[in-house]
Amino acid sequence: MAERWTNTALLVIDMQKDFIEEGSVMQVKGGKSIVANVIRVVELARQRGILVIWVVREHDPRGRDVEVFRRHHYNSETVGPTVKGTVGAELVEGLIIREEEEDYKIVKTRFSAFFGTNLHSFLQTSGVNKLVIAGVQTPNCIRQTVFDAVELDYPNVTVITDATAAATPEIHTANILDMKNIGVKTPTLHEWSEDDFA
Amino acid sequence: MAERWTNTALLVIDMQKDFIEEGSVMQVKGGKSIVANVIRVVELARQRGILVIWVVREHDPRGRDVEVFRRHHYNSETVGPTVKGTVGAELVEGLIIREEEEDYKIVKTRFSAFFGTNLHSFLQTSGVNKLVIAGVQTPNCIRQTVFDAVELDYPNVTVITDATAAATPEIHTANILDMKNIGVKTPTLHEWSEDDFA
Repeated sequence: MAERWTNTALLVIDMQKDFIEEGSVMQVKGGKSIVANVIRVVELARQRGILVIWVVREHDPRGRDVEVFRRHHYNSETVGPTVKGTVGAELVEGLIIREEEEDYKIVKTRFSAFFGTNLHSFLQTSGVNKLVIAGVQTPNCIRQTVFDAVELDYPNVTVITDATAAATPEIHTANILDMKNIGVKTPTLHEWSEDDFA
Repeated sequence: MAERWTNTALLVIDMQKDFIEEGSVMQVKGGKSIVANVIRVVELARQRGILVIWVVREHDPRGRDVEVFRRHHYNSETVGPTVKGTVGAELVEGLIIREEEEDYKIVKTRFSAFFGTNLHSFLQTSGVNKLVIAGVQTPNCIRQTVFDAVELDYPNVTVITDATAAATPEIHTANILDMKNIGVKTPTLHEWSEDDFA
């Protein structure tokens, strides 16, 4: 069974409290409903021997490393979203980075997990050419990472449709379609869990 | 009037015969209907003194520089889409690169005009921080160029909604919404043409 998943990495993207929990300006409305599925994807990945990579934001308190259009959230009066060292930057309950299982962590500052990070070189030296993606949110960080992966010639990119989410189901579905149209696999968690037996 | 458009470049993306005209495997269904508007955008840009940059594909006959999921279109039996030097790689009727007006041309091999090209450094040394985008197709080359521009901190990115197109109006509209949601301006050609007087 393990061989089926050789050269595969799971990217868990932005599953941090400020993106998921209520009360944050950056909350992704559909985020809460997929937490259980993301936990299950990680469990399944570990069982299959898939390399788990946690992609997170840990921003400068002044927002100097945030997208220009979001910098107004970072000022002296309030703590901005996913600032390094704050509770909002922590992973949501149930998701844990396990160093003893050789998990890896990537800190990013833009939508794509590839933008300004060592992700591509890390994957190359790790022999990874198959990517499985879960987390939030579908039109921005998920999709931008997926498109970059396709542009970088990863031959096998999978998005677990019910372990990713957006502000609305319509936005989510439209983005899944666009990704499917460029050759990305878009199984449900159930379909992906049965992939071994297909 | 000219000052209003200082530091602005127009990117005209993939307006090549193989993406627009019928009979090509890569035809973008909505492409033909926007040709007249793209011609008008270019005219207006020239009147305003905006730098015009033509972004095109000119692929290897064997498809070695094409996205992996499209390589099957390039084989020894047929000529693949937008192969360098072929008729299909030419701009559609009505669009002309004018070197005497200091137009610039960028050849790309992936969705994004920034991927593996000198576009970003060229724009930086040209003092450009405002981008206006037209061409095909909305979910792929248009959007990927737009998201990369936002990731690269261009503070002012505009997509002319009726000078861009996709396979269906639904795909086009969904993608325009996602771009609007990250701060991109999405005027119609008419709105953009009246921008000087706003």
